[in-house]
Amino acid sequence: MPEDSRKRASRRLAIARGHVESIIRMLDDPHVYCVDVLRQIKAVQGALSGAGEVVLRGHLEAHVATAHERGDANEIIEELMEALKYT
Amino acid sequence: MPEDSRKRASRRLAIARGHVESIIRMLDDPHVYCVDVLRQIKAVQGALSGAGEVVLRGHLEAHVATAHERGDANEIIEELMEALKYT
Amino acid sequence: MPEDSRKRASRRLAIARGHVESIIRMLDDPHVYCVDVLRQIKAVQGALSGAGEVVLRGHLEAHVATAHERGDANEIIEELMEALKYT
Amino acid sequence: MPEDSRKRASRRLAIARGHVESIIRMLDDPHVYCVDVLRQIKAVQGALSGAGEVVLRGHLEAHVATAHERGDANEIIEELMEALKYT
Repeated sequence: MPEDSRKRASRRLAIARGHVESIIRMLDDPHVYCVDVLRQIKAVQGALSGAGEVVLRGHLEAHVATAHERGDANEIIEELMEALKYT
Repeated sequence: MPEDSRKRASRRLAIARGHVESIIRMLDDPHVYCVDVLRQIKAVQGALSGAGEVVLRGHLEAHVATAHERGDANEIIEELMEALKYT
Repeated sequence: MPEDSRKRASRRLAIARGHVESIIRMLDDPHVYCVDVLRQIKAVQGALSGAGEVVLRGHLEAHVATAHERGDANEIIEELMEALKYT
Repeated sequence: MPEDSRKRASRRLAIARGHVESIIRMLDDPHVYCVDVLRQIKAVQGALSGAGEVVLRGHLEAHVATAHERGDANEIIEELMEALKYT
C-alpha cells in the first residue's frame, strides 16, 4: 500500500476507534437514548467508509491501474470485486 | 434503552473497537496489502451494523411499539426515519 | 398500507421504472461509457431507497406504533428487523 | 464498455424493470402489506447492485487496468472513486 494511503487510513481509523470508545461510554449510562446511539454508530460507519476510500484509491493507483502491464489484471480485478462485494 | 440492548450493543462495540485496533496495527507494516485492509474495514462495518441492529430492535420494542398509546408517534417516527436515513 | 403511502410509493416506483428503461436504452449504444451507466444505476438505487422510505414510514405509523396495544409487537418487530436486514 | 458487459448488464436491468413493474402492481391492491413491498424493493436494489457489478468489472478490465499505460490513471481513478462514492 502506498505510504501516504497507509498513514491517512491509519489516522482515520484512530479517530474511528476513539469514536467507538465514546459510544461504549455512552452505553454506560442507563438513561442513554437509543436513537442517539444509532446516530453515533452510523457516524462511525461513515468514518470507516472514509478510511476504506483512502485504501481503495491507493489500491487503484498502485495495483489496479498497472495490472495490464504486469499481466495479472484478471487476478487483481477478481480480488477487488470480491472485496467490494463484501459491503 | 433497554438494559439488555445496552449490554449487548456495548459488547459488540468493544469487539469492533478491538478489530479497529488490529487494522491500525496492520497499517504499521509497510508491506501491508490494500485488499487485506479493505476486507477488514468491511468486516468492522458489518460488526457495527450488528450493534446498530441490537439498538434498533431495543428502540422498536421500548419506544416505537408503544408510541401510539403514549401519543408521540409522529415525533418518534420522524426521529427514527432521520436516524435510519443517516446510513 | 396507508392509502397515501401506497400512492406515493407507486409514483416513485413508476419514475424508477422509467429510469431503468433509459439505462437499458443507454446500453444499446456500443460506445456507452461504463461510469455513466454506473452513475445512473446508483441514481435508480437512490430512487428505490426513497420509495422504500415512504413504505417504511407508512408501516411504522400504521402497524409498528400501534403494535403494543394490539399485542403483536414481537412479531411485528421481528418481521421488520428481517426486512430491514435484507439491505 | 465491453460488449459482453453491456449485454449482461442490459439483461439484468430488464429483469429489474419487470420486478419494479410487479411491485407497482402490488401497490394497486389496497390490502397490500407494507413489509411485503419493502422486501420486494430491497430485492430490486439487489438486482441493480448485480447489474452495477457487471458494469464495474467491465470498467476495471477495459479502462482502469490499462490506465497507467495510457497515461490517464489520475482521471480514471478520480472518476471511479466519485462514481463509487455515489452509493
